[in-house]
Amino acid sequence: MKINHHYLNLPENYLFSEVAKRTREFQACFPDVSIIKLSIGDVSRPLPGVVVQAMKRACTEMGHGKTFRGYGPEIGYPWLRDAIAKHYREQFQVELDVDEIIISDGAKSDLSNLLDIFDHNATVAMCDPVYPVYLESNVMLGRKPQFFYATAINNFLPLPDEHITADIIYLCNPANPTGVCYSRAQLKQWVDFARQRQSVIIYDAAYACFINDSNLPHSIYEIDGARECAIEVNSFSKMAGFTGVRCGYTIVPKNLCTSDGVSLNQLWRRRQTTKFNGVSYIVQRGAEAALTPVGLQSINKNLAYYRRNVCLIRKTLDQLHWSYVGGIHSPYVWVRCPGYRTAWECFDFLLKTTGIVCTPGVGFGTAGESYIRLTGFNTYANTRTACQRLLALQNQKMHE
Amino acid sequence: MKINHHYLNLPENYLFSEVAKRTREFQACFPDVSIIKLSIGDVSRPLPGVVVQAMKRACTEMGHGKTFRGYGPEIGYPWLRDAIAKHYREQFQVELDVDEIIISDGAKSDLSNLLDIFDHNATVAMCDPVYPVYLESNVMLGRKPQFFYATAINNFLPLPDEHITADIIYLCNPANPTGVCYSRAQLKQWVDFARQRQSVIIYDAAYACFINDSNLPHSIYEIDGARECAIEVNSFSKMAGFTGVRCGYTIVPKNLCTSDGVSLNQLWRRRQTTKFNGVSYIVQRGAEAALTPVGLQSINKNLAYYRRNVCLIRKTLDQLHWSYVGGIHSPYVWVRCPGYRTAWECFDFLLKTTGIVCTPGVGFGTAGESYIRLTGFNTYANTRTACQRLLALQNQKMHE
Repeated sequence: MKINHHYLNLPENYLFSEVAKRTREFQACFPDVSIIKLSIGDVSRPLPGVVVQAMKRACTEMGHGKTFRGYGPEIGYPWLRDAIAKHYREQFQVELDVDEIIISDGAKSDLSNLLDIFDHNATVAMCDPVYPVYLESNVMLGRKPQFFYATAINNFLPLPDEHITADIIYLCNPANPTGVCYSRAQLKQWVDFARQRQSVIIYDAAYACFINDSNLPHSIYEIDGARECAIEVNSFSKMAGFTGVRCGYTIVPKNLCTSDGVSLNQLWRRRQTTKFNGVSYIVQRGAEAALTPVGLQSINKNLAYYRRNVCLIRKTLDQLHWSYVGGIHSPYVWVRCPGYRTAWECFDFLLKTTGIVCTPGVGFGTAGESYIRLTGFNTYANTRTACQRLLALQNQKMHE
Repeated sequence: MKINHHYLNLPENYLFSEVAKRTREFQACFPDVSIIKLSIGDVSRPLPGVVVQAMKRACTEMGHGKTFRGYGPEIGYPWLRDAIAKHYREQFQVELDVDEIIISDGAKSDLSNLLDIFDHNATVAMCDPVYPVYLESNVMLGRKPQFFYATAINNFLPLPDEHITADIIYLCNPANPTGVCYSRAQLKQWVDFARQRQSVIIYDAAYACFINDSNLPHSIYEIDGARECAIEVNSFSKMAGFTGVRCGYTIVPKNLCTSDGVSLNQLWRRRQTTKFNGVSYIVQRGAEAALTPVGLQSINKNLAYYRRNVCLIRKTLDQLHWSYVGGIHSPYVWVRCPGYRTAWECFDFLLKTTGIVCTPGVGFGTAGESYIRLTGFNTYANTRTACQRLLALQNQKMHE
């Protein structure tokens, strides 16, 4: 049996299982401590009512002969692609052709499946720390990525330089795990660099809904020239609470062509038409409802809820004089481990002294060795309790 | 931009667009003729009520904080994997470990994504005529498949021979497009052959629900030795009317290992965990409901409906003395073009004389050059009218 031996080179994905194991062991020793997870990378607010109603209507339709729907278009129903085009036009002043929008079951699938349309020998570059899917889906193909590092030296916003020679460049903006966000001018540097080098940017905009400032780019297509070099991957997951519902989309501009005129839009459509059979009709109706004015109103309430949490976390860190970035245009706060601890030492320290679970930054790459990630996805009550415990920690220290 | 140039070698997938174009042109010339599509490869019966109810309940749950679900397990919820294991045990007397069952958005995705876990240089073999996805997903990787031919000479059930040297062998049983079904003894030949050669069989069981005879194998795991050589891909699409709902599953036995002990189950789980984020919670609840006794009762009614259609088609072909196979354990009938016509000539002939749309067999491979595919997926009323028109055709001819 000729298996793909590159799979054997994958890093053991032990981050989350190790977090769970240490948490479990702590809880067994201290059953009275109520543990609070500020490590959650998943939404917790329920779906907007208008989304639930739309999906229920779609279920009903599927139960009647006259309104039943079988196979839909592999690339998504036109009405959902229209709704996304309208959303981009109205919210970000970005004009998209509906044929440039291809619906999928989520950003994770697209971010990794997109590699199918590139040459097996294409080279890739990505940030460290990074969403592990970028790295692992490339290791599976036998690639050794180039890294550019997000550190305090570059304010965690690495910019292109001549060391990067890759054919494919991943950018996540606002970034997971650091929670920082590029300005237009910074993003323009990436776009210009990619165009000069004929590289393709795979732009992960899954957290764009958290951007709080209209001067910051929500879509890479707000940047001149991006239509010639960038593929944007986006999702309803974090925006509309669809992590368990599953709907995303990828935008491949028609201007994105090789020098001999091969359209990447055509390649991606062909990939999806051949190897995918479309997203559930029910789910697509839910996504359509999420983009209605009523849907967006509910969504904004949920986003405000998470923002309030993350704002409280930031305030608390300020009071503690702990160094951090992110959390303004992102649900994520990237915290420098206090007291020269490593990420795992900080994890153990926080768990033992406060019952708070964080995510050790080293799980996202070597540049996360001295960092932890906190998130605003827990309930407000839990977040507040966690912050009180953190502050109490400081008072204890003062009295020590 | 370094694109995957193998995409440029893909055959133009013009079959269905050409069918649509010729149908449109005919309708424009003869607006009074009511066209009947016996080309439909999609289900048309609505979902069972118990499935609709389960999905609506799941939608409601997603709208409340206490019952909301975010990310589920990438490989599917345990309760759905349990339900599938129970179904295999009770219906086919096949024992599966729930860890061997991995839920997905459908058979098409799995049949093509499974290639990820094999070596880039692995060779493949498949039937001609064939479901185009097997071929195209391999061409995308730069592979030239070996073909074994389903023809009248082997009763459309090709068996292994020494010309087949591939690492990966696709089998579809009951077969699309020919509608024929291997016996246990025949399937055993494939299993023994694969084990001798250390090949892996990718077994597409998407049409197993149409098998009418308990002596025929519904799952390849009914065959001794299959757990050492076969991956089974199955789906709720044709069985439960899920073509627009999207749910399938792939079974990778734990016994399926390389000679140095690498588990293909582990590889596939790793692939799905890294490059996929699970199926919609709502859809999984629907699939679970489909496998309940009430769900299966509704499903069997729908399957009986399609069977009645296909039985009528077969009877009509018998009366016409047209040669065909399939249609007993399958929704598909593979018809030899009458009057020495080619597939497209037969398509035009049927459309012009009866208003019936068929699928030209050549769209599935060179061995389909003189065949058309008819299906039982239209309504009974339409199928009956189509059959009457076919019979009238014979009477006309007698009077010519």
